[in-house]
Amino acid sequence: MESTTRLLLPEVEQALQSAPASLLDLTRELHAADLADLAQALKPDLCLRLLTILPASTCADLLEYCDEEVCARLFVPLADESMTAATAVIAVMAPDDRADLLAILDESLRGQLLAALNEEESRDIRHLLAYADDSAGSLMTTDFVALSADASAVEAIDAIRQIAQEMETIYQAYAVDPNSTLLGVISLRDLVTAPENSTLASVMNPNIITVADDDDQEEVVRLISKYDLLALPVVDKNHRIVGIITVDDAIDIAEEEATEDVQKLGAVDPLESSYLSTPVVELIKARLPWLIVLFLAVLATPFVLERYTAIHPEIAILLGWFVPLIVSSGGNSGTQSASLIIRALALGKITPGDTKQVLAREAIVGLTLGVSLACVGALALVARDATRMTGLVLTIVCSLVAVVTLGALLGSGIPLVLQRLGIDPAVSSTPFIASIVDVAGLIIYFEIATVFMT
Amino acid sequence: MESTTRLLLPEVEQALQSAPASLLDLTRELHAADLADLAQALKPDLCLRLLTILPASTCADLLEYCDEEVCARLFVPLADESMTAATAVIAVMAPDDRADLLAILDESLRGQLLAALNEEESRDIRHLLAYADDSAGSLMTTDFVALSADASAVEAIDAIRQIAQEMETIYQAYAVDPNSTLLGVISLRDLVTAPENSTLASVMNPNIITVADDDDQEEVVRLISKYDLLALPVVDKNHRIVGIITVDDAIDIAEEEATEDVQKLGAVDPLESSYLSTPVVELIKARLPWLIVLFLAVLATPFVLERYTAIHPEIAILLGWFVPLIVSSGGNSGTQSASLIIRALALGKITPGDTKQVLAREAIVGLTLGVSLACVGALALVARDATRMTGLVLTIVCSLVAVVTLGALLGSGIPLVLQRLGIDPAVSSTPFIASIVDVAGLIIYFEIATVFMT
Repeated sequence: MESTTRLLLPEVEQALQSAPASLLDLTRELHAADLADLAQALKPDLCLRLLTILPASTCADLLEYCDEEVCARLFVPLADESMTAATAVIAVMAPDDRADLLAILDESLRGQLLAALNEEESRDIRHLLAYADDSAGSLMTTDFVALSADASAVEAIDAIRQIAQEMETIYQAYAVDPNSTLLGVISLRDLVTAPENSTLASVMNPNIITVADDDDQEEVVRLISKYDLLALPVVDKNHRIVGIITVDDAIDIAEEEATEDVQKLGAVDPLESSYLSTPVVELIKARLPWLIVLFLAVLATPFVLERYTAIHPEIAILLGWFVPLIVSSGGNSGTQSASLIIRALALGKITPGDTKQVLAREAIVGLTLGVSLACVGALALVARDATRMTGLVLTIVCSLVAVVTLGALLGSGIPLVLQRLGIDPAVSSTPFIASIVDVAGLIIYFEIATVFMT
Repeated sequence: MESTTRLLLPEVEQALQSAPASLLDLTRELHAADLADLAQALKPDLCLRLLTILPASTCADLLEYCDEEVCARLFVPLADESMTAATAVIAVMAPDDRADLLAILDESLRGQLLAALNEEESRDIRHLLAYADDSAGSLMTTDFVALSADASAVEAIDAIRQIAQEMETIYQAYAVDPNSTLLGVISLRDLVTAPENSTLASVMNPNIITVADDDDQEEVVRLISKYDLLALPVVDKNHRIVGIITVDDAIDIAEEEATEDVQKLGAVDPLESSYLSTPVVELIKARLPWLIVLFLAVLATPFVLERYTAIHPEIAILLGWFVPLIVSSGGNSGTQSASLIIRALALGKITPGDTKQVLAREAIVGLTLGVSLACVGALALVARDATRMTGLVLTIVCSLVAVVTLGALLGSGIPLVLQRLGIDPAVSSTPFIASIVDVAGLIIYFEIATVFMT
């Protein structure tokens, strides 16, 4: 819970129970983002009471600052209470946010709301809803400034002034031909400094960075971040501008993508909403399948151990003592490599074209780490006075070098192969790589023991 | 390597060797971000040649799109070649980017450059350099629009038009009193739609979101992301505005912070630059200390195993077969919880105040996962026809329930405790938590075996 919310909550709860109207002054002063936090912290009945006393535009602002799931959780009781109030809120929400909300409402409620809106707005929403999840089209807003390339700078500023309050941003405008084909981008900065009679065609930048409406949201973040854009125009197959995505949405997507990557790396299916708003049942569903897969992946280890202990019963117990030490070292090295490579792939800093270079680097790094760790291991054995068992010392030292190097190679190689196959490399979660290295490391350890100890 | 770079590289390399001046047309059309990629892909001597033919302003743009370390690597040879060219570039760089560059140059070069700049600029840089790394002050730019609150809307627009080209952004202006005390924020959108004679005091928003100059960069990202800001004003202890941080910098910081978290979770010290630009020696330095710490953390396992095998020699080998299966299941459960909780803490979705609720949820989740996994384990044993060994089956089933639950509790509890102690919870990397769960899981396993098998 945020500190502002924690401070205001008792006062707001009391006001909602006794004199709700007295809250209007406070809600006018609060930023919509803080109001959204406050609404989420309230009990459902008080939250509904808050939403009903707020003007529709404030209520829309508040909902726009919530995650989709939270937004739906707040909105549905409002629609149950008063369809008129709910429709008024939907009518003033930003096109992208209301499409996101409608997308997760149940079909009958969505139908009722679409029927209550005017035809143009309802068509606009249906159009946005048709785009695939996580595509640029599903993220864009259709409230953007499009101007004729023939207009003069002063005409353009006048036109922008007229529509400023409805637009998502007015700081980037787009010059188009009569078919909406995108010709250039003009910043308000360039417009206000341009000579009054210059045409947009002479002021605009014709080298436009665009994204296709069916491109993935990761590409949206990459472009906005790389080119420091305030807004990214979305175009269809005929290079007509169909919407824009603003930088504030890019930050939200970047955080969402990073969260998903961290969760996948930790062998958890990405959660739909934040940890505390996710029901326990959903947490279990996101974790259990992976835990079982990982369990099955190391299910080979008892067989491997049984086989080798049958071959070398006289040294089986002694060798067994060092199994966790050897396999965890390989797994840790694999985890390190995987987290470096998977993040670099996600940010586009490495592409599958760099595979050879990456593997060469990891071979050197892995070997160096393995030799260093083997020295630590040897010291530990000396300290335990186990040096008279030369075979054991040699086995452990050589195994550490081998499994740490193997970990580095598999930890970097598996994500690269997955990326090449078009699979998100983050699904090769670090525990999964550690499990593969565990099984392989165990076999290496006993094979080396066979050489030195029998 | 980016696809644009890959396409252009051969042509650019050849042009630089034969007729460098022919490149100027190409470089005028390319976005500075692409030019920066290209420069980084060139061999050092060709890159230097490219920088020397570019106009100082293009060169400055190019450097502003590079990470600090890369920026310094490109800039130093230019300064060695021509101090005049280097000073010209520094003079036109954005204040925040040039301060970042100067901060990592060696002292004598920094001194020469500061001496070559005019007094005001050199004072400005020294001021920025005095801020702690990763503080809001070290990130801000001092090129922002400050206006007197008494000015009228039309005067303000005129003033902005005059200075538009030098400012980092003109879309947010700040109303100040004669002491630079921040009174309100005015967006250019509000300015262009305001009646011409209204004063800034009547148009501005006095509820300003600000950050203190010594606040951490994570707070900067949190505020810009939460409130969807284009620019965040930085204030000193007397609430005087000393700079602004723009949203494009916030995206870069958010990605940098997420990358650092992923690396820490993978038990790697955060790298200074991207994976491929990090020398192998640095990679080893970032990984070896952690690998040794993790090795020492599981160094207890041979002792634990030795002790229990001494107590129960008759069943030691049999029990040993299942050690990797049991400990890795606990480790995986711990990794899952840790990655969920550490990311939620980083985004401020969970605070230490939520500890009880988190632990209660994790206890339920861990127990459910443990029981489910135990069922899978029991099935696997039945399939192996090991059911006649009732003691072994009971030991494995109970151990799985216990270690998976323990993993969930430690994986969530350790990050929460670290956060409460003011330590970054990401340093409790997932392999570290897995190692602790390994050792504890081993003891639990043998204790349970003692009950059921002897």
